[in-house]
Amino acid sequence: MEEALFLKTYVAEFLGTFMVVATGTATMALTNADPLTIGLAFGGTYAVAYYAFDGLTLGEFNPAVSLALAINHQLKWAEMIGHVLAQILGAILASGFVYLSAINLGTTGSNIGQTTSNLTDPMILLVEGLLTFFVVLVYLRVNPTETSGAALINGLVIVALSVAAYSLTGPALNPARAIGPAVYVGGKALFQLGDYVLAGLIGSVCAAIIHRLLKTDHSSQKTD
Amino acid sequence: MEEALFLKTYVAEFLGTFMVVATGTATMALTNADPLTIGLAFGGTYAVAYYAFDGLTLGEFNPAVSLALAINHQLKWAEMIGHVLAQILGAILASGFVYLSAINLGTTGSNIGQTTSNLTDPMILLVEGLLTFFVVLVYLRVNPTETSGAALINGLVIVALSVAAYSLTGPALNPARAIGPAVYVGGKALFQLGDYVLAGLIGSVCAAIIHRLLKTDHSSQKTD
Amino acid sequence: MEEALFLKTYVAEFLGTFMVVATGTATMALTNADPLTIGLAFGGTYAVAYYAFDGLTLGEFNPAVSLALAINHQLKWAEMIGHVLAQILGAILASGFVYLSAINLGTTGSNIGQTTSNLTDPMILLVEGLLTFFVVLVYLRVNPTETSGAALINGLVIVALSVAAYSLTGPALNPARAIGPAVYVGGKALFQLGDYVLAGLIGSVCAAIIHRLLKTDHSSQKTD
Amino acid sequence: MEEALFLKTYVAEFLGTFMVVATGTATMALTNADPLTIGLAFGGTYAVAYYAFDGLTLGEFNPAVSLALAINHQLKWAEMIGHVLAQILGAILASGFVYLSAINLGTTGSNIGQTTSNLTDPMILLVEGLLTFFVVLVYLRVNPTETSGAALINGLVIVALSVAAYSLTGPALNPARAIGPAVYVGGKALFQLGDYVLAGLIGSVCAAIIHRLLKTDHSSQKTD
Repeated sequence: MEEALFLKTYVAEFLGTFMVVATGTATMALTNADPLTIGLAFGGTYAVAYYAFDGLTLGEFNPAVSLALAINHQLKWAEMIGHVLAQILGAILASGFVYLSAINLGTTGSNIGQTTSNLTDPMILLVEGLLTFFVVLVYLRVNPTETSGAALINGLVIVALSVAAYSLTGPALNPARAIGPAVYVGGKALFQLGDYVLAGLIGSVCAAIIHRLLKTDHSSQKTD
Repeated sequence: MEEALFLKTYVAEFLGTFMVVATGTATMALTNADPLTIGLAFGGTYAVAYYAFDGLTLGEFNPAVSLALAINHQLKWAEMIGHVLAQILGAILASGFVYLSAINLGTTGSNIGQTTSNLTDPMILLVEGLLTFFVVLVYLRVNPTETSGAALINGLVIVALSVAAYSLTGPALNPARAIGPAVYVGGKALFQLGDYVLAGLIGSVCAAIIHRLLKTDHSSQKTD
Repeated sequence: MEEALFLKTYVAEFLGTFMVVATGTATMALTNADPLTIGLAFGGTYAVAYYAFDGLTLGEFNPAVSLALAINHQLKWAEMIGHVLAQILGAILASGFVYLSAINLGTTGSNIGQTTSNLTDPMILLVEGLLTFFVVLVYLRVNPTETSGAALINGLVIVALSVAAYSLTGPALNPARAIGPAVYVGGKALFQLGDYVLAGLIGSVCAAIIHRLLKTDHSSQKTD
Repeated sequence: MEEALFLKTYVAEFLGTFMVVATGTATMALTNADPLTIGLAFGGTYAVAYYAFDGLTLGEFNPAVSLALAINHQLKWAEMIGHVLAQILGAILASGFVYLSAINLGTTGSNIGQTTSNLTDPMILLVEGLLTFFVVLVYLRVNPTETSGAALINGLVIVALSVAAYSLTGPALNPARAIGPAVYVGGKALFQLGDYVLAGLIGSVCAAIIHRLLKTDHSSQKTD
């Protein structure tokens, strides 16, 4: 990767994460939307961002994915930290935009698409961890920046898991997406934020390990 | 581009914009549809039109996209004006068709899918401008006429932004789509039309600038 | 096309049309489904059938498409008639299957997904004709049997037009799909059947003409 | 296939079936979801699993598909039995995960997405058999592990048939998916389980036979 690309990579991670979080959480908060609509807003935007920012970044828009790429030597540790900071900044600004829109629309602004759960803490870790594991594993096995079809597959896993876990954990599937709204609304979303972030890390590490175990010469041709 | 192709380009821009506006606004006005259905009607038809009219036109169907292509020297300024006129004509005839259908069905015809917003004027500019920025940026980075997959990606961004901004600005995401119905129903839709058109221009110019800044040798291979 | 392929072609047209009509009309009649669900049942099954029966047939599953292919010399007139008969037989058996399922489920069987409209007869011709024109034009310009992506584009136009015209004409978009259920339920569906079939023919002829006018050396490489 | 790939194949069949059954049945049981949402949760996850586990397995995640592949000599009989056992184990653990989540969420756990039908037994056999026939035939003709587009086509047939047969048989479309929840909830789901499994076998055998009859030199290039 050339030197000049560095700043562009961070801009891409920022813009992509902004798009995903703004679109998904605005749909949750401002549109009277059912779980499928919310899932498609998130998953569709991930697919668009994966494909649109290809060539500038590995296109993660998710700290859990960035971490797994670093574990698997596809991303340097220092770069990974830069990506994650750009993602968190994008998510926080996106939630600020949704918050501003909600206030202007005349709502109380207490719902800006934050993640909360009625499960016990260990169960949040299990559910979010398992879901993030699948999201990251699919990313590692199917590089979404290769073809638009692969971008759709990586968006589709977000859609399916979003509707499945709607009543369980929201879900976040991405620590940055959990952080963004929690900063503004505080309360339960902030209180449970540790669970969501920790679950993301656990899912990421497990996916990186299983990905290595499953790797074959055949599959590596396609996914790397 | 050959001389003989000129007229065909305008026919394609007219037919594509007619399809998009007729399908999307008819779904809003005549089908008791939720935001996802409306978003898929618009986004799905854009994807179909992008792919189906490839070879005849750059496939914009949106003045904001045509303007950005002209700024980036991918379309001559005179041609751009022709494209935009064909798009506006297509949108106005499409709304006439929806108006005629609504009357024949026995409704008052006061809802033909026009765009209106409860936001303040500056907020309309911010929201529509930001959304149009993303629509145009994705188009500039992922040429929808190249593969059906890229056409789907460009349709998907319309779906996701349509559901996210449903309660904010409609949204239009395309000045021609805002003009079409406003001509027939007047009132608030006509009153706010300036905001929608101006927001489209601002989003277009910003996307053209950011696209140039983000351009790399690698990405230009794919998106040009 | 070899001699041995002939029978397989008719089996493919029969199976594909059976799948499309059974899936779409069962969703209308037996699932408490909104217009989007119905549109996706029809459009999704068209996409699947287009791709799955490629290599056996041009994959029309729609008399309006078969007619346009014959007009454009892509299908012999005698073969076209065979395809259309296989399509009508598939549609009628599919509606029989839905009728049998409805009775076994304990409904009256008076709703098996038939097409009816509250529009005036000339307006039915205009709406169905215009919609079928777009369906056939997209098919002629984007061969759905070439790639799975093109199959999706041809399915997507069905989804978008189905939701847009849900309250106008159903819609049929395919004379065989209108014939199937009308045979069993009679009444208004049978009374208006002439409108639907005639609209299909008009849309088909117009699409074949416009397709020729729009054809360029560039586009013919891709669509033929 | 190398010796070392064997265990990985079983892990892939286990993980893929776990993903499909957990996502689909959790959506049915825990999200207040309409038939389209449920269909997209199942079909979307199949598409993701088909593409993500390519290179490790033929990617069946369904005993009806594995059986048809064995009949058509694409899978050895001994391997097929191993695949089916891994699939059933994945489905049972997935239902255990959904059961645990339901209890933790405070529901009675009596709905974990099991399949039941109000049809008569012969009609269950006819409906499930016919639907599984189409699912397997599409798989045999369009290898989902080849491109992401083909994976989407195989997911789409699940979406369309799921919404069409929602009120008829659930549907299962996959004996492993019927077995998973029935183990925990018993009752009607367990009582009718024989019908679902038998229907899957009948559909599989019929699809294998029709696939052979329809095979041409042209189509075999693409689907094998």
